[in-house]
Amino acid sequence: MQLSHRITGINAGGSDGWGLFYRARQLKAQGHDITELTIGEHDIRTDPLILNHMHQSALDGATGYALIPGIPALRDAVAKRVQDQTGVPTSAANVLITAGGQAALYATHHAVCNPGDRALYIDPGYATYPGTIRANGAVPVPVPARPEDGFQPDASAIAALAKGAKSLLINSPNNPTGVIYSRDTLQGIARVVQDNDLWLISDEVYDTQIWEGEHLSPRALPGMADRTLVIGSMSKSHAMTGSRLGWIIAPEQAITHLINLATNTNYGVPGYIQDAALFALTLGADFEAQIAAPFRRRRAIALDLLAGQNAVRAVRAVPPQGAMYMMLDIRATGLDGNSFAERLLDEHQIAVMPGESFGPAAAGHIRVAMTIPDDPFRAALQTVLDFANSLVVTVE
Amino acid sequence: MQLSHRITGINAGGSDGWGLFYRARQLKAQGHDITELTIGEHDIRTDPLILNHMHQSALDGATGYALIPGIPALRDAVAKRVQDQTGVPTSAANVLITAGGQAALYATHHAVCNPGDRALYIDPGYATYPGTIRANGAVPVPVPARPEDGFQPDASAIAALAKGAKSLLINSPNNPTGVIYSRDTLQGIARVVQDNDLWLISDEVYDTQIWEGEHLSPRALPGMADRTLVIGSMSKSHAMTGSRLGWIIAPEQAITHLINLATNTNYGVPGYIQDAALFALTLGADFEAQIAAPFRRRRAIALDLLAGQNAVRAVRAVPPQGAMYMMLDIRATGLDGNSFAERLLDEHQIAVMPGESFGPAAAGHIRVAMTIPDDPFRAALQTVLDFANSLVVTVE
Repeated sequence: MQLSHRITGINAGGSDGWGLFYRARQLKAQGHDITELTIGEHDIRTDPLILNHMHQSALDGATGYALIPGIPALRDAVAKRVQDQTGVPTSAANVLITAGGQAALYATHHAVCNPGDRALYIDPGYATYPGTIRANGAVPVPVPARPEDGFQPDASAIAALAKGAKSLLINSPNNPTGVIYSRDTLQGIARVVQDNDLWLISDEVYDTQIWEGEHLSPRALPGMADRTLVIGSMSKSHAMTGSRLGWIIAPEQAITHLINLATNTNYGVPGYIQDAALFALTLGADFEAQIAAPFRRRRAIALDLLAGQNAVRAVRAVPPQGAMYMMLDIRATGLDGNSFAERLLDEHQIAVMPGESFGPAAAGHIRVAMTIPDDPFRAALQTVLDFANSLVVTVE
Repeated sequence: MQLSHRITGINAGGSDGWGLFYRARQLKAQGHDITELTIGEHDIRTDPLILNHMHQSALDGATGYALIPGIPALRDAVAKRVQDQTGVPTSAANVLITAGGQAALYATHHAVCNPGDRALYIDPGYATYPGTIRANGAVPVPVPARPEDGFQPDASAIAALAKGAKSLLINSPNNPTGVIYSRDTLQGIARVVQDNDLWLISDEVYDTQIWEGEHLSPRALPGMADRTLVIGSMSKSHAMTGSRLGWIIAPEQAITHLINLATNTNYGVPGYIQDAALFALTLGADFEAQIAAPFRRRRAIALDLLAGQNAVRAVRAVPPQGAMYMMLDIRATGLDGNSFAERLLDEHQIAVMPGESFGPAAAGHIRVAMTIPDDPFRAALQTVLDFANSLVVTVE
């Protein structure tokens, strides 16, 4: 009477990468004044307009089982949104509504990987990626994206690991690096994916947070629509993280089978949350820009502070092109990301995520979430820079 | 580039058992006046008291990521409820909040079955059981519970199939039969489970709908707490079907791993729904009795009508001891459940579920959901009885 290998192996015997986050939360619970720059969650809550709409929907009766693939109006709205953004013909039959982006990550890997299949993903990546693959009984294979390449994945590095693999998971705009994959990068990826007959799983949940350049969905590249599964979500775009509302865009046949999986996993998503999401989408681009605006402002603050460092320049960064994070290179301090983050927490009560939490390719980095108000953000980041600088000076 | 065997095999090439339900819904959409006695959903909606509380929680800020295992207060409340009901020591560490009972069914099988493992379940059973097992890459093995035994599972029938199996899934009060497993039945099951070193997965989502006798949770039997995973839900007890809020009660070590799975599947359940569930639990036994009352009334109506049949007695039934369904034996009509249900829909515009939808052991039966108001329920059931009677007379 033992538990399954699949479930006991989810974290592969290691940690889930969130050790520093938990320690910070614990210190906070003990009464310490901790500045948290750790998680990808807005410092605002879901807009009352959206919540009022949700409540009215519930009072009006949307409290029973909702149709499992999603309510038709929301599937239509998501299809239209995706088609408008990408130009790829998309209908409700290409859309499955899921309980958030994470459920979509799980379901897409379930749909394409048999037990033991190799599933590629880009390192550094979101902390749940390898666990999500292992929870499906597949084997996560990281493909390093190097800081020297500005964290753009390299097609030949993917190709070197692609033989016999089943899928490749990418994420642009990227968490944790803030990088947006260039057209060149995505065309290279599309070529490798087609050459090796892989499925491409494209996590695009940050697609409304674009600070520089443009976001290109790889589903729009030639020959890719029938082998790409796109993951979307209302979490980041509409500050609805806790409502767990996301979707998968996929070929119709894949959606048919994913609906069967949805029947046997969540049995649908609350109808009143779907109604709220439908309403939120009607608020349009202005609303989405307003939700994204704080991160745009704080990114500018951060770039100013980074540029204003003394000649030592203890901290370097690839300027984030999108998403709500900055990946800071602290290798000049002589510390790795873990040690830097631990000391920063102990000595300055500031919590950041070690780059190592997102994969070995981000070693010697820290991820700063731009998720606290501007003034404390500015002050905290200045402290991070001063701390890094003090380490370099000490070494000299 | 193919989809996984696991996902394409969910329905094992067959139907999902809901063909008649879909056909009835289609006729309804075309404007036909169809009486639906098909699905297990209350004819009332979630109480506005609960919805108002949910709204206030959301407005107060519970719209961000909730703690993945569930908010502490709700885990505590569920633990206390289970301990009070069963006497088995239960703490928050034994509780994982899930996105409904179905998510709990999926997660428990994920936790105990490796790919290819045999997972037993009782036939007839809820329609998603075999698909849920197959979605986990395991092999569903039905154990027939015979109408001749009043649909009580037989320990020796289970034992005959238990060798080398990993788990047994039971459901009492039972959907679709309305039967409550007796203490004898459960003790027999406990013995077989221990003799064969199985996990027991006990789906107890109808535990507030008890019309006769008493519900016994098998986790309370000697030696069973460390090998039983109990599934609970707010859906049936509090008319919150669409809110997708359930739980797993399990040994602490299993919950630890199930939290890892939750991190990589749904990433938690909306905090405002958890707050609403916590509030709903405080409404107490009177509220739960009020939610159950309509089914108690309609069961009495149905038993009266059945007793009032003419001497032919075309329809027989095991009087349902619990849950919101009646399983009617229509074998005297000479039709199987599928043909009876199809003809009833075509000739009398009444939709019921064929027993066969829930497994071969219920062949020659139909399941009637007692989920429409009393007067139309009485009229519809009378029509069912008259129709059955007309078939018997015709045969004579």
